[in-house]
Amino acid sequence: MIYCDYAATTPMSDIALHVYQEVAKQHFGNASSLHDAGGKANDILENARKVIAKLLNSEAKEIVFTSGGTEANILAVDTLLRANRSKRSKHIITTMVEHSSLYYYMKKLAQQTDIEVTFLSVNTSGQISLSELEKSIQPNTCFASIQHVNGETGFIQPIKQIGELLHKYHITFHSDMVQSFGKIAVEQLLPYVDCATISSHKVFGPKGIGAIYFSKNLSLAPHPVATNHEHGLRPGTVNVPSIAAFAAAALETVNNITNNHTHLLFLQKLFMQKLKSEGIPLQPITSENQCPSIIGCISEHVYGDYLMLEYNRHGIAISTGSACSIGQSQVPKAIQPLINTQEEGKRFVRFSFSHQTTKNEIEKIIATSTIIFKRLKEERQ
Amino acid sequence: MIYCDYAATTPMSDIALHVYQEVAKQHFGNASSLHDAGGKANDILENARKVIAKLLNSEAKEIVFTSGGTEANILAVDTLLRANRSKRSKHIITTMVEHSSLYYYMKKLAQQTDIEVTFLSVNTSGQISLSELEKSIQPNTCFASIQHVNGETGFIQPIKQIGELLHKYHITFHSDMVQSFGKIAVEQLLPYVDCATISSHKVFGPKGIGAIYFSKNLSLAPHPVATNHEHGLRPGTVNVPSIAAFAAAALETVNNITNNHTHLLFLQKLFMQKLKSEGIPLQPITSENQCPSIIGCISEHVYGDYLMLEYNRHGIAISTGSACSIGQSQVPKAIQPLINTQEEGKRFVRFSFSHQTTKNEIEKIIATSTIIFKRLKEERQ
Ligand SMILES: Cc1ncc(COP(=O)(O)O)c(C=O)c1O
Ligand SMILES: Cc1ncc(COP(=O)(O)O)c(C=O)c1O
Repeated sequence: MIYCDYAATTPMSDIALHVYQEVAKQHFGNASSLHDAGGKANDILENARKVIAKLLNSEAKEIVFTSGGTEANILAVDTLLRANRSKRSKHIITTMVEHSSLYYYMKKLAQQTDIEVTFLSVNTSGQISLSELEKSIQPNTCFASIQHVNGETGFIQPIKQIGELLHKYHITFHSDMVQSFGKIAVEQLLPYVDCATISSHKVFGPKGIGAIYFSKNLSLAPHPVATNHEHGLRPGTVNVPSIAAFAAAALETVNNITNNHTHLLFLQKLFMQKLKSEGIPLQPITSENQCPSIIGCISEHVYGDYLMLEYNRHGIAISTGSACSIGQSQVPKAIQPLINTQEEGKRFVRFSFSHQTTKNEIEKIIATSTIIFKRLKEERQ
Repeated sequence: MIYCDYAATTPMSDIALHVYQEVAKQHFGNASSLHDAGGKANDILENARKVIAKLLNSEAKEIVFTSGGTEANILAVDTLLRANRSKRSKHIITTMVEHSSLYYYMKKLAQQTDIEVTFLSVNTSGQISLSELEKSIQPNTCFASIQHVNGETGFIQPIKQIGELLHKYHITFHSDMVQSFGKIAVEQLLPYVDCATISSHKVFGPKGIGAIYFSKNLSLAPHPVATNHEHGLRPGTVNVPSIAAFAAAALETVNNITNNHTHLLFLQKLFMQKLKSEGIPLQPITSENQCPSIIGCISEHVYGDYLMLEYNRHGIAISTGSACSIGQSQVPKAIQPLINTQEEGKRFVRFSFSHQTTKNEIEKIIATSTIIFKRLKEERQ
């Protein structure tokens, strides 16, 4: 199988798998236990926390581990809302293109509580308008949550400018960096955000682990479940083997960011050139500010889910959008500004690559695409 | 090290570790993805769900996987509250001896929302009074949450009788079965509960995985984050490797329940006999209805945390109560009915055994206890 769905999830790296095994076997103690078995697990935990903190150019006390990006997003929102208890009627600013874990949670908050939420739209480059952002700020705005890289298009938000603007108004800034961590040097952007979400299984670590960066400048109230875990912010026996494996995977991925980026730029260029030169009717969705690992495409005639199955039949795994939204048969929200009709949106497919993707694989994908679209054309005639 | 803290956490079994590796390496796809890599992961997920369902004498559609027992407890409460949306002012019945994840969450609900919570106390056998339970029922009672086995004392609640009483009044019954699953045949009690929590790392599975059983007779509303995962009740990329390993570990543990129980009864008897015959000043806390894997003790003179460190120095890992409450320097709530003064409560320690514990280990613990208490006695003189 040629796997082109790294934006959905990645395989665990060898080092991550090795670390997981070692810790699960040798150091299985409960990190909260005060005997040596617990102490050793706690040492491993705190070491992993330092590794992740360093990769984010932050401090260990600013990192809270969670069961993944989804929980991290929800917990970040809940924690930031709790931190703003003084504000009576609360207001949050977010975008139309957040990951479903944030988008739907915000929708429910807006519908079922007295919290007001502004959903900013994006332009054809996937970016929000800074002036609209500024206009949306209210005296009771608690925080803004604006993603870094969109998982469907790879489009990048101007985090630095957004952060500068929000901080001018003393508004806390959370950013979902799940799709950028390990691909872009997010640590350079950390000074501009107060809170960020990352997830392990997107950077060749285990599934079921993520982290939140909470700036030490935030004053946070503890989780409703009084807990001694994770600085009091996240209860539950800590999953130390997965956390240690996450740190190992993240370290390796971030250390190779420059090489991987060069490789991905090469793959992206090759893929797009070949699509064109071979006359394959897939129109790539591109922007100046885009992560090269993600190439969303609109097909000329065929629905994305049909195409996905065709590629699958040929041993190539691609996607029609975020795996978390599959089965909801909606056009990905991030695609909306780029299409004229909903029918066009249904013709969306996503290729996502990684450092594991080879030139040879790209060539096979192109060859397969030629076969698929030739047959589809014949069928239509 | 002689590990006697299996109630806090267990090492992963060989089979669980093997399954984890295989799935993480070979079948890493996102279970929501519709290509073959996702389909294979989804098959493994649904197979694991069937295994857990069967162990609980339930159906696959009744099982929701979570990131552990803590999340499972909180999600069960939130989901059951959402299911009772029609009731205006809501009332919950629970006990004073629930695990911190439930106890503190209920406390916060009682303090910070309009939800009313009744906390039932327990007698010296750790059991609630059925007549008090009956008296606490109100027209607006949404559900009761009463644990099966207490993690500090091993005391067992009469789940069948509680369930029969609650169902007479049509009240939903949730039970935290984290400490009993894999030790007691909980599947025989499932007809008496509507909702139950279990956790993987207590049955030699990976940390960071748990499950909720929701009876198909409950009518539940989806999670606030509209999700296609876990029957719409729990969002986030599903941790398939851990779930598969959980199922493998649980299957092995539950299949050996009878043998393990016999072994634990033998160890319990041996330990208590030897404590007595060697004149070790540790008073075991016992009851007719007790899980033999847990032996809480009140020491005659010394504080539990000091004793724990002494045992640790001698290579024996014991505990002073639930690992989740450590550092909160409180007397375990389950001990309260058994003590006359708070000072007495601080002299509590817990030994917890498993099928991996040997006769030889018990003998070593006794020998070490003799040394420790002899020295302590000398110091006092
Ligand atoms: C942008 C973004 N945020 C959050 C998530 C959720 O992370 P997780 O899968 O770890 O729950 C994902 C991926 O699923 C994502 O792409
Ligand atoms: C009775 C009980 N419930 C819930 C939990 C929480 O489970 P987890 O550690 O998987 O979060 C535990 C153990 O920690 C427990 O003993």
